[in-house]
Amino acid sequence: MLNFDMHIPTRIHFGRGKIEELGSEMRNWGRKVLLVYGGGSIKRSGLYDQLIQIFQDNGITHVELAGVQPNPRISSVRQGVDLCRQHEIELVLAVGGGSSIDCAKAIAAGACYNGDAWDFFIRQARITHALPVGTVLTLAATGSEMNPYAVISNDETKQKLGTGSSALFPRFSILDPEYSFSVPPEQTAAGTADIMSHVFEQYFSPTEGSYVQDRLAEAMLRTCIHYGPIALEQPNNYEARANLMWTGSLALNGLLGSGKLTDWATHDIEHQISALYDVTHGLGLAILTPHWMNYVLDEKTAPRLAEYARNVWAISESDDIKAARAGIARTAEFFKSLRMASSLKEIGLEEKSLETIARQVTNGETLGAFKKLDCKDVLNILLAAYEG
Amino acid sequence: MLNFDMHIPTRIHFGRGKIEELGSEMRNWGRKVLLVYGGGSIKRSGLYDQLIQIFQDNGITHVELAGVQPNPRISSVRQGVDLCRQHEIELVLAVGGGSSIDCAKAIAAGACYNGDAWDFFIRQARITHALPVGTVLTLAATGSEMNPYAVISNDETKQKLGTGSSALFPRFSILDPEYSFSVPPEQTAAGTADIMSHVFEQYFSPTEGSYVQDRLAEAMLRTCIHYGPIALEQPNNYEARANLMWTGSLALNGLLGSGKLTDWATHDIEHQISALYDVTHGLGLAILTPHWMNYVLDEKTAPRLAEYARNVWAISESDDIKAARAGIARTAEFFKSLRMASSLKEIGLEEKSLETIARQVTNGETLGAFKKLDCKDVLNILLAAYEG
Repeated sequence: MLNFDMHIPTRIHFGRGKIEELGSEMRNWGRKVLLVYGGGSIKRSGLYDQLIQIFQDNGITHVELAGVQPNPRISSVRQGVDLCRQHEIELVLAVGGGSSIDCAKAIAAGACYNGDAWDFFIRQARITHALPVGTVLTLAATGSEMNPYAVISNDETKQKLGTGSSALFPRFSILDPEYSFSVPPEQTAAGTADIMSHVFEQYFSPTEGSYVQDRLAEAMLRTCIHYGPIALEQPNNYEARANLMWTGSLALNGLLGSGKLTDWATHDIEHQISALYDVTHGLGLAILTPHWMNYVLDEKTAPRLAEYARNVWAISESDDIKAARAGIARTAEFFKSLRMASSLKEIGLEEKSLETIARQVTNGETLGAFKKLDCKDVLNILLAAYEG
Repeated sequence: MLNFDMHIPTRIHFGRGKIEELGSEMRNWGRKVLLVYGGGSIKRSGLYDQLIQIFQDNGITHVELAGVQPNPRISSVRQGVDLCRQHEIELVLAVGGGSSIDCAKAIAAGACYNGDAWDFFIRQARITHALPVGTVLTLAATGSEMNPYAVISNDETKQKLGTGSSALFPRFSILDPEYSFSVPPEQTAAGTADIMSHVFEQYFSPTEGSYVQDRLAEAMLRTCIHYGPIALEQPNNYEARANLMWTGSLALNGLLGSGKLTDWATHDIEHQISALYDVTHGLGLAILTPHWMNYVLDEKTAPRLAEYARNVWAISESDDIKAARAGIARTAEFFKSLRMASSLKEIGLEEKSLETIARQVTNGETLGAFKKLDCKDVLNILLAAYEG
């Protein structure tokens, strides 16, 4: 196990009706709020009206940044930063999934910086201060509600890049699983795949002796495998939505990755795909993951992949390579069972772009830690995932 | 799953040499420190000299409360409170295991209260403020380094009682597994049993649908079962000490109990035993636990006890009652394999005191949540544990 520091300052309010905490939480941070949200789903569900009532009841004035897209754009961030400056905003409140939250975080940092917020993503500036961010989560997926990261896309430069700073931890997050009842099947499936991918990126590591982290990771994978299909079939199943929502937060709050090297090659590749094709992040990950697993499988990585197969999929095969292959097959079948596409071809990628993607994502360096991948490796994974 | 709130403000510095963070952490909170520790082990190990050097290097003045006993006494707390007032202490630094930390927490609260600190434990006063507490952990067991609880004994009233307040979360905790290399075998075993008991108290619950918490709990139990024996045989095994230390913190920081009713009957009974006989907490728990499991086993509780047996001990028996019994037997064997006593008789209890213990701990009420226990139930468990 490696040395680590951990500090998770986010205050979590989890469960039915927990929106009742929103008023007092907001008042801790200010009276002028920027409300950041995506499409019309919070209007259809009645959550928007509830928010407006809570603002009124608590003497809070607000301005809105609506229409934040999946794969949130730096253009939305810039708009939000302008609103913060214009209205002297004190708190940025994200309502939605990871896109709204990531956008809110980037706005919160951008509002405290004398320059363009994109600088944070291209490593031209470091985030040291940010306005406080609060969240009301409506979708189990990214874990952004309990972590210090944000991923933003830039349509002009065709990049999708991440940043992180302890200043970006939401001060509070309200997690009511009922808000995710209305998440459509394809988003529920993609969200489940995103959570699982976060676990994989931290579970598959060259670090030895991180036993407790690894058992915790398997616990979260089993939770996703158990409840993903239930949430798909019974969207209003509270138990399924609650377990997925809480697992989503725990999967990327530091618990699994502390004390280990982590991988993130699959995420890096997916981000480059999303930057070019604007695909749903979780869907891209679900397609890539089994092909990544298959490609990195060798004598050295087999024991860990076999451990995954045995502990998560209860595969009893004693040969590591065979067990690993069986676990990989089960992973691919699971994503298919969630009615997700299983090839990059199906979701509209062009074969000719794969080389560009591989070149841009590696940019002369290697990706990953479990097994280091160069440009050619990435291209091989992409080619395999293209055919499916 | 039940609703819950979670906020863990403690800053963790985990790993070899992390004492290097102590100076800057202390300076965040003040320059006048009360150093709270137990016996001479930190002097023998050289840690004491290191601390004095760090105090000097950082311009920190300190006073000492040494000699804090296992099952820390309210008399030590009162002494510490006096020192805080006399020297205008700004930070209470506990160095040691749960006893020193719990004592430090009670001192920190007592120093901000116009009355006797015992009031907090007999519910005559609530803790709303406390001096900041920091910890340097040397023993994996209680989890006090990352939670808001303290348990204190009173020799005069023969009580051992707990209290809790968010004001008691340590502001920082330094967890260097190497500091636990010198923990003797009997303390290593008792610490492992204490960690496991914390997991059991939260795992065995009447709440349904807390799937992810339950899988996380099993992950932690498996870690203790894997590394407890290794730490006993190879006291300087870093991997074993690191996994036990981190699991000890995670087992009682809110992660496992959030969203569920928790039990704590075994802890309540053990506290009453310790109040009368000053036994090692973890040892008392190890003796009681299998008898508690055995006593609460019925048609209603069998599925969960069987799940424990299957997921933690890999027992394949399909009948729930039989599987549960096998799991209980494995639990008892495991504690015995750590060279712990397996009956209350062996550790010096008198049979005639069992009724008093049962009466005092229940005090006309019931204990527990997984299965409610009245005075007669507790006596039956004590009688079984007495014979072993």
